[in-house]
Amino acid sequence: MKLAIAGVAGRMGQQLASAAVEAGHTLTGASEAPGSDALGAPLSKLVHGAPDDVQPQSDVAQAASGADVWIDFTRPGATLEALKHLKSAGVKAVVIGTTGFDAAQEAEITEAAGEIAIVKAGNFSLGVNLLCALTKRAAESLGEDWDIEILETHHRRKVDAPSGTALMLGDAAAAGRGADLKTLRQAPYDGPDAAREGGKIGFSVRRSGGVIGEHEVTFGSEKEVITLAHSALDRSVFAHGALAAARWALRQPAGLYDMNDVLGL
Amino acid sequence: MKLAIAGVAGRMGQQLASAAVEAGHTLTGASEAPGSDALGAPLSKLVHGAPDDVQPQSDVAQAASGADVWIDFTRPGATLEALKHLKSAGVKAVVIGTTGFDAAQEAEITEAAGEIAIVKAGNFSLGVNLLCALTKRAAESLGEDWDIEILETHHRRKVDAPSGTALMLGDAAAAGRGADLKTLRQAPYDGPDAAREGGKIGFSVRRSGGVIGEHEVTFGSEKEVITLAHSALDRSVFAHGALAAARWALRQPAGLYDMNDVLGL
Amino acid sequence: MKLAIAGVAGRMGQQLASAAVEAGHTLTGASEAPGSDALGAPLSKLVHGAPDDVQPQSDVAQAASGADVWIDFTRPGATLEALKHLKSAGVKAVVIGTTGFDAAQEAEITEAAGEIAIVKAGNFSLGVNLLCALTKRAAESLGEDWDIEILETHHRRKVDAPSGTALMLGDAAAAGRGADLKTLRQAPYDGPDAAREGGKIGFSVRRSGGVIGEHEVTFGSEKEVITLAHSALDRSVFAHGALAAARWALRQPAGLYDMNDVLGL
Amino acid sequence: MKLAIAGVAGRMGQQLASAAVEAGHTLTGASEAPGSDALGAPLSKLVHGAPDDVQPQSDVAQAASGADVWIDFTRPGATLEALKHLKSAGVKAVVIGTTGFDAAQEAEITEAAGEIAIVKAGNFSLGVNLLCALTKRAAESLGEDWDIEILETHHRRKVDAPSGTALMLGDAAAAGRGADLKTLRQAPYDGPDAAREGGKIGFSVRRSGGVIGEHEVTFGSEKEVITLAHSALDRSVFAHGALAAARWALRQPAGLYDMNDVLGL
Repeated sequence: MKLAIAGVAGRMGQQLASAAVEAGHTLTGASEAPGSDALGAPLSKLVHGAPDDVQPQSDVAQAASGADVWIDFTRPGATLEALKHLKSAGVKAVVIGTTGFDAAQEAEITEAAGEIAIVKAGNFSLGVNLLCALTKRAAESLGEDWDIEILETHHRRKVDAPSGTALMLGDAAAAGRGADLKTLRQAPYDGPDAAREGGKIGFSVRRSGGVIGEHEVTFGSEKEVITLAHSALDRSVFAHGALAAARWALRQPAGLYDMNDVLGL
Repeated sequence: MKLAIAGVAGRMGQQLASAAVEAGHTLTGASEAPGSDALGAPLSKLVHGAPDDVQPQSDVAQAASGADVWIDFTRPGATLEALKHLKSAGVKAVVIGTTGFDAAQEAEITEAAGEIAIVKAGNFSLGVNLLCALTKRAAESLGEDWDIEILETHHRRKVDAPSGTALMLGDAAAAGRGADLKTLRQAPYDGPDAAREGGKIGFSVRRSGGVIGEHEVTFGSEKEVITLAHSALDRSVFAHGALAAARWALRQPAGLYDMNDVLGL
Repeated sequence: MKLAIAGVAGRMGQQLASAAVEAGHTLTGASEAPGSDALGAPLSKLVHGAPDDVQPQSDVAQAASGADVWIDFTRPGATLEALKHLKSAGVKAVVIGTTGFDAAQEAEITEAAGEIAIVKAGNFSLGVNLLCALTKRAAESLGEDWDIEILETHHRRKVDAPSGTALMLGDAAAAGRGADLKTLRQAPYDGPDAAREGGKIGFSVRRSGGVIGEHEVTFGSEKEVITLAHSALDRSVFAHGALAAARWALRQPAGLYDMNDVLGL
Repeated sequence: MKLAIAGVAGRMGQQLASAAVEAGHTLTGASEAPGSDALGAPLSKLVHGAPDDVQPQSDVAQAASGADVWIDFTRPGATLEALKHLKSAGVKAVVIGTTGFDAAQEAEITEAAGEIAIVKAGNFSLGVNLLCALTKRAAESLGEDWDIEILETHHRRKVDAPSGTALMLGDAAAAGRGADLKTLRQAPYDGPDAAREGGKIGFSVRRSGGVIGEHEVTFGSEKEVITLAHSALDRSVFAHGALAAARWALRQPAGLYDMNDVLGL
């Protein structure tokens, strides 16, 4: 697979490029913002094992030329600008991990997907996406007498809580019950009068050393407990998922897809 | 709900009767094998809170008279004999937890289900049945590069290993991969040359104190691990599941159902 | 072992008496408060398997007569009143699970322990007490670059959080670091700015179905995580621990002991 | 701290050198076997961030010159040969992770430790060593009615089972009971007649994806379960532990130490 990576000098861009090299794919191009130090330098200086003769370009058409798939984890404006040039540059599919699009920007993406296959997701870990699907299904099957609790553990440097992924799991559980997480979210239990409200979804959070990311959803009845959990073993799991999405997208007709489509969930 | 319990003096019969009393159902009858000491004695002597004026009967028609649902966790011969009398005794639905039917006996049950709603299952825990469904679905979604391992922990008195439920989970995982567990089952890893074979399903077993029953299915890739687990908190969970099946069966037309139907899986 | 149970008609009193009967000990007496319905009725009506010819007494000397050990999980005033009569009634050892003594009352117990062996504890589970000792030792051995987090899970009916046992574990961890939990306790992580403070001890709480009680202490560094955990399988675990304390106390000289002494920790 | 790394071109040598660079220590020298390609080349080519002007040497005295601590994870013969030259080269302490010494070789090390501080261990993870100490203590405190089970999970490429660390934990548990693991080791539970023998220590094993290494020791009684567990988050944990041992050894008088000494266990 021939790949071009947007924003290749950023943290996620470098992880994507490294994962592509390790998986044996060909990096045919890369982009960086105008003014970046990385422009014009060999990609091999940035990413161990990348080709010497590829250099990050600020021009999308040049960066995309020769690539089968464009992978973009940058910012909304940059991603939308790139989308205008990819089809004519010969790119066959796009993977978007950028977040924070507003409604008008989402509509632009939907329109672009009329001409090219696009996979867009908030989390590219195959495992997390499957866990969301399983959580939704379990919440559909189990009545309100099964208490739902979501526990997440991350490294000590993470400052927001609960994690975005924990909230994604909460959304999936709430959807399984035909409700919105906003109305079901229980505040942390703390103090002498911290009773659980029936039907609510609780969240608990740990911050511990170098833990990459662990999520655990439990459904507890009086007699039994079901646990659905995910543990990331390696920080490269998201780049790994994006490459899986790229491989899948290459075989699809134009359209807008998410990781559920990639996984066949 | 009005219930009659087959084999009420046995360990499972007593658990079913106790659970029914606790849940506020009415015990209208109960059976025992001819010669049992329990025949003719008030059911209240056997089961705390059961009615004084109900006595176990060896005659099925008498035992079943007045009941909405007949719950039967006995032996194949006894269960099949009872099935001949339930419809005419006015029973509306049957829950069968008996195991060990041969093919001809299974056919008799299927025939009986032409006239009355029957729920038949090997494990009545709602949680275990859901876990099987989720395991099958995960195995369908994840490729062979996700290693499947099944761990079970039971109390120290259990002599067979792996547990029947662990094998049920293994069947579900194998089915998700379109294969049979017989061909995928990996022997325990033990010794200097205990390499994992790709695509196989491993089993590991612990026997510890009074643990009622814990099962954990893991799917492990290079980058992430998904865990699906079940823990029984109370030995009455199976009786509890049988009552849920009885409530559901009462609302169904004639037919043969399993716990997946009850759970809407 | 010959036992007398204080407050035998209460929830904990009944559990203690049942556990004693199941373990094959002899119940020689029991007390109840003046006015209790249980006074004068055979103990067998209250506790399955207890003797018919023992009746709860409001007079401590009568209740204690013939017993080797007096077990008391009642209220501070009642426990202190009983202590005045036990030695002269021939009792050889006392197990106190009552909580909430003030400093003056604690001094009375210490004085009484000059004449009789007394085991007094806030939690009689052998496992929880050992977990506290192991937690203290781990906290002593590991530097502040190991983040301590304490997770507890209890049934949905528990209203206070974190549990008393979670705080006991927190005290043990803080003591291991030569500090007081009051200064080390971290508020729950919740919101966009919920950073972990170095050296603090975090608590997280789940309320789920019928879970009897689970506690998990983790020590996380950048490279590894140590987990020390306890799970109660049966509500009778505390009564079970009190009986173990009674057996041990019978062999001791006068003195005030706690569960660390019983366990040899 | 000024360090010299033996066998720096090997897998563990490179990890040690990388960890030292990341921790801000100074690499003053390194050794390699005669004939190695790494001899004479700048260390920076082998290890990112290492100095350009240090080159691996086949002569130990040259390699060790200027170093405070010599770290050696090579082979018994090479380690013993190095020990002859370290003191006179000015080295103050030695860390040995080499395994497989025979009794005569162990005696040579003990003799060398008369002149220089040596830390020697089979596993340099601080967490695993603490877990062993806690496991021994728990086994001492809990009677034989607490079943001991040891579960380990490693990546799919590991061929021996149970892991060396699982056996180390088994040794610690057996020692806590005043016995030898050889007499207490239970074969895997497998088949219809796989009853647990009282007092034995069970082992169970999983091989799953990219799991670096997880170990879990459980002590189960009828009423409660204690779990002591360790999880490695990063393959560099052993190099990290060796550096901690080096820092500690620098402050010690001559003598032979293990990781229990380093941790103060």
